[in-house]
Amino acid sequence: MGKEATTTAGVIIIGNEILSGRTQDTNVAYIGKRLDGLGIRIAEVRIIADVENIIIENVNYFRRTYDYVFTTGGIGPTHDDVTAQSIATAFSVQLKKNKAAITAMKIFYPAKVFNDEQEKMAYIPEGAKAINNSISGAPGFQLENVFVLAGVPKIMQCMFDVLSERLYGGTPILTTSVSINLSESIFAAALGKLQQKYADISIGSYPHFHETLPVVTLVMRGNNPQDLEKIKKELVVILQKLGGTVLAI
Amino acid sequence: MGKEATTTAGVIIIGNEILSGRTQDTNVAYIGKRLDGLGIRIAEVRIIADVENIIIENVNYFRRTYDYVFTTGGIGPTHDDVTAQSIATAFSVQLKKNKAAITAMKIFYPAKVFNDEQEKMAYIPEGAKAINNSISGAPGFQLENVFVLAGVPKIMQCMFDVLSERLYGGTPILTTSVSINLSESIFAAALGKLQQKYADISIGSYPHFHETLPVVTLVMRGNNPQDLEKIKKELVVILQKLGGTVLAI
Repeated sequence: MGKEATTTAGVIIIGNEILSGRTQDTNVAYIGKRLDGLGIRIAEVRIIADVENIIIENVNYFRRTYDYVFTTGGIGPTHDDVTAQSIATAFSVQLKKNKAAITAMKIFYPAKVFNDEQEKMAYIPEGAKAINNSISGAPGFQLENVFVLAGVPKIMQCMFDVLSERLYGGTPILTTSVSINLSESIFAAALGKLQQKYADISIGSYPHFHETLPVVTLVMRGNNPQDLEKIKKELVVILQKLGGTVLAI
Repeated sequence: MGKEATTTAGVIIIGNEILSGRTQDTNVAYIGKRLDGLGIRIAEVRIIADVENIIIENVNYFRRTYDYVFTTGGIGPTHDDVTAQSIATAFSVQLKKNKAAITAMKIFYPAKVFNDEQEKMAYIPEGAKAINNSISGAPGFQLENVFVLAGVPKIMQCMFDVLSERLYGGTPILTTSVSINLSESIFAAALGKLQQKYADISIGSYPHFHETLPVVTLVMRGNNPQDLEKIKKELVVILQKLGGTVLAI
């Protein structure tokens, strides 16, 4: 492993529908890409059930282990939405009606009168800062280093835009890649040597299929653009000597 | 929460490319659906880096906690493929050349001579049973309750076909659903009461967008088909009384 961003994040995806395979999660990839651009590295993701004690245990472990924690899911008004209460319990605080949230939500409810379930979504843990939701009103929230977001991708993404200004990242991680029509075992030994030579760059080797053609994409990640250019040129020479044709660069 | 399948699984996705958001994981949803059909419930998923001590720690925790464990990723021939060695260490055994794997791989290497890196893929932990890979030869493997699979979805899926015959599930979980054009807060109170009435069924409420139209899909999961039909009828009546139009059933 080469050098990577040292500001870390943990992501907790809360939702039975993801665990059962009914819903394809896309929030991990979205958050991963956004954080990558900020020089923050996701160190671990957990996908867990909508169960209070499981949420509490994982949030408490993550917030003490990683610089930032992001959760998605479970902040709506129905009986299976237990995230806000679980986060409050994890921090030993109470849920409290948030005035800013009420104001923001009124825009989305023309009658400006809430039923109990609508009002439930304006309750966030005491001391938390709301994260506005310009799509449907009900906010996410931040408590210390924990950001609690909606599960619906469109709403989660709009909350992420709001909170991204509150994050302090490191040097953004730079990436370059080469795709080749060789099987990994042809170049594995040479690649291992190249990795040893460039200890500050991490090289990943990802086989996949382009239509039916097997392809390997080699991804180099690091902080120094000159080194990345240099290693890429060396890699292309190595792959060509082994009989490969570079497919994308 | 209602009653759910009691045979549990944990899934460990091994791969820096998933954590960075570069690659969208689809293996969780695939495995989730296949296990659901076998009456096995994924209780937890972790996405972790390609780092030996992290893999060892998580595999050891999962194999003692869940009935079955599935890992994907990191079993190729390159320097960043450390899964097989990590699993061997987790079980305190050595990697050993597997004769069945060599035989299977020879079909894919017409010269029938392997370089060191190709041969590396035929080394699986002592005592493990190979899981054939009819796409590219190099096998996955099973050690006790842990199934170690490729990360490439196509190859992982073909390995899953082989291993699924080795799984003992429970009563398959039945699912039915209703989609409605009401916001969750309109029916949340009534839905909570319905959940209390049917303790053996778990009801999940999943808001999403159909094009730009907000829709909520209510998913009911349980083992008894008569109960599922009954709760669904009651739910439709409740939603219609609240002014909703059922969009899909």
